[in-house]
Amino acid sequence: MPAGQGYQVCVVGAGAVGKEMVRLLRERRFPLRSLKVLARRPRVERIYGSDYEVRPASEEEFRGVELAFFAGTEGAKGASRRFGWAAVEQGCVVIDNGDDFRMDERVPLVIPEINAHALEKHRGFIANPNCTTIVTLMAVAPIHREAGVRRMVVCSYQAVSGSGSAAIAELEEQVKAHCGGGALEAKVYPRPIAFNVLPVIGSPDADGTTSEEAKLRRETHKILGDSSIRVAATCARVPVFNGHSAAIHLELENALASEEARRILSAAPGVRVVDDPARNVFPTPQDASGREEVLVGRIRRDDSVEHGLSLFVCGDNLWKGAALNAVQIAEELIRRRGLTPQPA
Amino acid sequence: MPAGQGYQVCVVGAGAVGKEMVRLLRERRFPLRSLKVLARRPRVERIYGSDYEVRPASEEEFRGVELAFFAGTEGAKGASRRFGWAAVEQGCVVIDNGDDFRMDERVPLVIPEINAHALEKHRGFIANPNCTTIVTLMAVAPIHREAGVRRMVVCSYQAVSGSGSAAIAELEEQVKAHCGGGALEAKVYPRPIAFNVLPVIGSPDADGTTSEEAKLRRETHKILGDSSIRVAATCARVPVFNGHSAAIHLELENALASEEARRILSAAPGVRVVDDPARNVFPTPQDASGREEVLVGRIRRDDSVEHGLSLFVCGDNLWKGAALNAVQIAEELIRRRGLTPQPA
Repeated sequence: MPAGQGYQVCVVGAGAVGKEMVRLLRERRFPLRSLKVLARRPRVERIYGSDYEVRPASEEEFRGVELAFFAGTEGAKGASRRFGWAAVEQGCVVIDNGDDFRMDERVPLVIPEINAHALEKHRGFIANPNCTTIVTLMAVAPIHREAGVRRMVVCSYQAVSGSGSAAIAELEEQVKAHCGGGALEAKVYPRPIAFNVLPVIGSPDADGTTSEEAKLRRETHKILGDSSIRVAATCARVPVFNGHSAAIHLELENALASEEARRILSAAPGVRVVDDPARNVFPTPQDASGREEVLVGRIRRDDSVEHGLSLFVCGDNLWKGAALNAVQIAEELIRRRGLTPQPA
Repeated sequence: MPAGQGYQVCVVGAGAVGKEMVRLLRERRFPLRSLKVLARRPRVERIYGSDYEVRPASEEEFRGVELAFFAGTEGAKGASRRFGWAAVEQGCVVIDNGDDFRMDERVPLVIPEINAHALEKHRGFIANPNCTTIVTLMAVAPIHREAGVRRMVVCSYQAVSGSGSAAIAELEEQVKAHCGGGALEAKVYPRPIAFNVLPVIGSPDADGTTSEEAKLRRETHKILGDSSIRVAATCARVPVFNGHSAAIHLELENALASEEARRILSAAPGVRVVDDPARNVFPTPQDASGREEVLVGRIRRDDSVEHGLSLFVCGDNLWKGAALNAVQIAEELIRRRGLTPQPA
């Protein structure tokens, strides 16, 4: 990178995740020479105080772009399938928040605090894991390194922002309808989400496991590089605007006292231990929302199984679960060896 | 019971549970000769369309009462400790929804569909289990009978009505404050519950397990008569007005195909299987609220463990989780041998 100039960067998608990508690139003073926003629908979009001319994505738009973030949600879903590898061929580094290439062998799937080493051999295309996977593994990976996770049972409490801005608006509208005494209309979700719990996220396979639950399992295997870890999950949507939570019940290879787990997690980067329930200190999604760290609490022994340990995590699904993790991947790439500058 | 006359009945507590007890006694045409409502604070309380003169509870008020329901929440908390056994000595049958005597060896802890036999040797004092325990076991007990539950991991999504009417009002007020752009004030709960998840219910012990989680374990052992079942739980409050949900991950003694589990649950009394996620058919707390049955769905194999089975349950915590179960206990007593009428 020529000093003082930064990179030609593009964000594909201007929904809930795309906007946070733009915001975080600015707030974290990512070295930007230029920043453009692409999406399906051209428009002027105000993103945290600045107007962006959103242009329709096309192959040409990636010419000269050195780094492209694909938000991978809403209108931008499928964009990385259409434009991602072509952009890489033009010399662009792609960081894809969508789930189309996460399990592709050519593609590292990275949470920088956990497996930054996977970036070493990247081929220009890097995938951001699923939001629930990131929030869960931020707490589980440090425990796994120390004591080995044999099995984990994860039950999630996921916020509507994970379904994009239309879902945020839907919860808001349903709540307003409730205040005005009206009926709750559901469009984004099959049932009202206000004052409700929807225990299906994504689409179910023939066995009844949902795609969201399947992602948690296979992404855990890829990120931790250990497909022997057994994962059971139930993913549910709750009427929370932003911030995913998960109750995690672990079975470890080796004994690990809860005090020791607390010490390990207190030292883990990107994790904040919030754990004194007797004094009403515990993680909540509201506290996690707008924070970079994943909050971990309710750390306790689970004596229903050998070497059992339970915990509760909350993380900002738009930030660490999506946009922040993507930007951190880019920052890590630069720290390691820079992005290859595009020939003029 | 003299024909056509019914019993002298009293409900202690006029909060969220007490009111539902009164309502269900009427709606189910429980044989009432008289029905009085006692609570800490005397007042006239309108309960589903009828006015009741609520009188302060005292030992004298139980004279001549043949059947007393203790709601065991809010203002009525502790009432069964003060008046319960004295009422029994006067010949009254007590059904206590509170948690003071659930583990008492003299006291049967009963879900009629599951362990009505425990009523055989009652001594006049019967306990109603915890709401989350009831909703969970309605689905787990039929599976346990068929295939043996070795271990269960339960993560709950509990409604505010479980904390009583002040908590319902608090969620309502916080939602109204949100609609009006104001701050969310928390009084009943340590943090705002609107648009949030609070992963602590009850008080934590030295190990960090909460009283709500401990109840689920020991009440399961007592109700199923099997203390070898290992139970791990995380209980969390969600912004739902009414209806508790739980994600349940079971490890069974014997193999049980999910189709077989679906068949067993479809035949189980008080259970309704709602399970076709591909067609958006799944249980939600809104659907369970105001229904007698516990809804069960997401029935699927959990191949992360030998003989694993997962499911998701929703039940009306004020009804099957409290008032309805208590009334059903009384109905079962009458069916079995009647209440001993009080000498005049």
